[in-house]
Amino acid sequence: MPESLVIDVGVAKTEKYASRESGDTVELVERPSGGFTVVMIDGQGSGRAAKTLSLLLSSKAVALVKEGVRDGVVARATHDYLFAFRHGQVSATLDLLSIDLRTRTTVITRNTESPMLLGLDGGIDVLPALSGPIGRYRWTKPSVRELPMQPGLEVLLFTDGIWHSGRRTDQPPVDLVAFGQRFFGQDTPAQSLADLLLETVIERDGGKPNDDMAVVALSLREGTSARAVRRMGMQVHLP
Amino acid sequence: MPESLVIDVGVAKTEKYASRESGDTVELVERPSGGFTVVMIDGQGSGRAAKTLSLLLSSKAVALVKEGVRDGVVARATHDYLFAFRHGQVSATLDLLSIDLRTRTTVITRNTESPMLLGLDGGIDVLPALSGPIGRYRWTKPSVRELPMQPGLEVLLFTDGIWHSGRRTDQPPVDLVAFGQRFFGQDTPAQSLADLLLETVIERDGGKPNDDMAVVALSLREGTSARAVRRMGMQVHLP
Repeated sequence: MPESLVIDVGVAKTEKYASRESGDTVELVERPSGGFTVVMIDGQGSGRAAKTLSLLLSSKAVALVKEGVRDGVVARATHDYLFAFRHGQVSATLDLLSIDLRTRTTVITRNTESPMLLGLDGGIDVLPALSGPIGRYRWTKPSVRELPMQPGLEVLLFTDGIWHSGRRTDQPPVDLVAFGQRFFGQDTPAQSLADLLLETVIERDGGKPNDDMAVVALSLREGTSARAVRRMGMQVHLP
Repeated sequence: MPESLVIDVGVAKTEKYASRESGDTVELVERPSGGFTVVMIDGQGSGRAAKTLSLLLSSKAVALVKEGVRDGVVARATHDYLFAFRHGQVSATLDLLSIDLRTRTTVITRNTESPMLLGLDGGIDVLPALSGPIGRYRWTKPSVRELPMQPGLEVLLFTDGIWHSGRRTDQPPVDLVAFGQRFFGQDTPAQSLADLLLETVIERDGGKPNDDMAVVALSLREGTSARAVRRMGMQVHLP
């Protein structure tokens, strides 16, 4: 069988303890020019208002991505929409993770306050947030990072709930470098990477998540496949 | 741990043999009123033109679903859009599978030529297509079926490539009842159900799929979960 590239995306989400709705929305859609984009929005606050906000913004961002609009413009347009209709009084974070099959690159476009974790060729990097949330200031623009679409690339993106875990009990932020050293570089499925980070963080919050939480994991690996098959799945547990 | 409901969705896709792009597009998005919708479009023909058509129509349908538009209207609007701009000369099939958490129902909205397979309480039903493809005739409307959101429900929806497999070698259509008898009612994960049907059908085509193929599987099961966690994943093999 010929060598092939496996693009593996995993998402894990939960909501703030005792809250019924998560203000974090994650969508994964196909790009018209080839490839896929994950849209992750964390609406300010928690509960129904935050959920409505994040669904509204993800609706805008997903529609633009599906129309073929470039990611940097999707982020600016989603910001402009929020700023125009909420007058700078409401904010949200926005992450776009794209696998662009035309340019053969991984493109990460962010307006957030949380860092991201990147593994490549044995190196582990914690990349700080360079552009703040959307919705607050007139000319907000995203920070964009372009990475190679090559086997061995591992990326973890997450919302504030992950980064702020343990704050209530005055713990330092979650040790991302230690997490990467322990779990990266072993061909771990993306779903497991996302689950592991979510579990680690819920433990820091004593089993009761302090905020809505979402993790997006990307793993590019070598594979062998006779045929191009695409799989997609979702599991939701309703208590 | 309390009993809970597990909503499990699995999708498997491949393209026509020796074709580089699949005219079947499947997207899974969150409904603003609570729940999820799978959008499956099979654009007429194969190759780039079919892929472009199915991406264009899925873009329209996904945007409408994400804006909270009811499924029957999404199907009508997507048809009207195609009919208005392609003048009845191009067709596509459309399937919407929704888990509506507000009404606690599973709603299936179809404009297609393939039957669907349904399992519930030990019974297995093959439900014929009642409404043809979109794009051809002025007043096309979908057929809609509402099912309970209850443990034990299993649904398989698929595009024409599945239903027409084996035609080149004059085989009868795939025996869906036998498939259901063999694999339904055993808490099989949705991804496995989708994979199994796709494999069965590719075998009927002698290992070389005669058309683009997509399968959507839904399984509702009882589960135990202390916490509402949502997982989502995608794996793409690029040869």
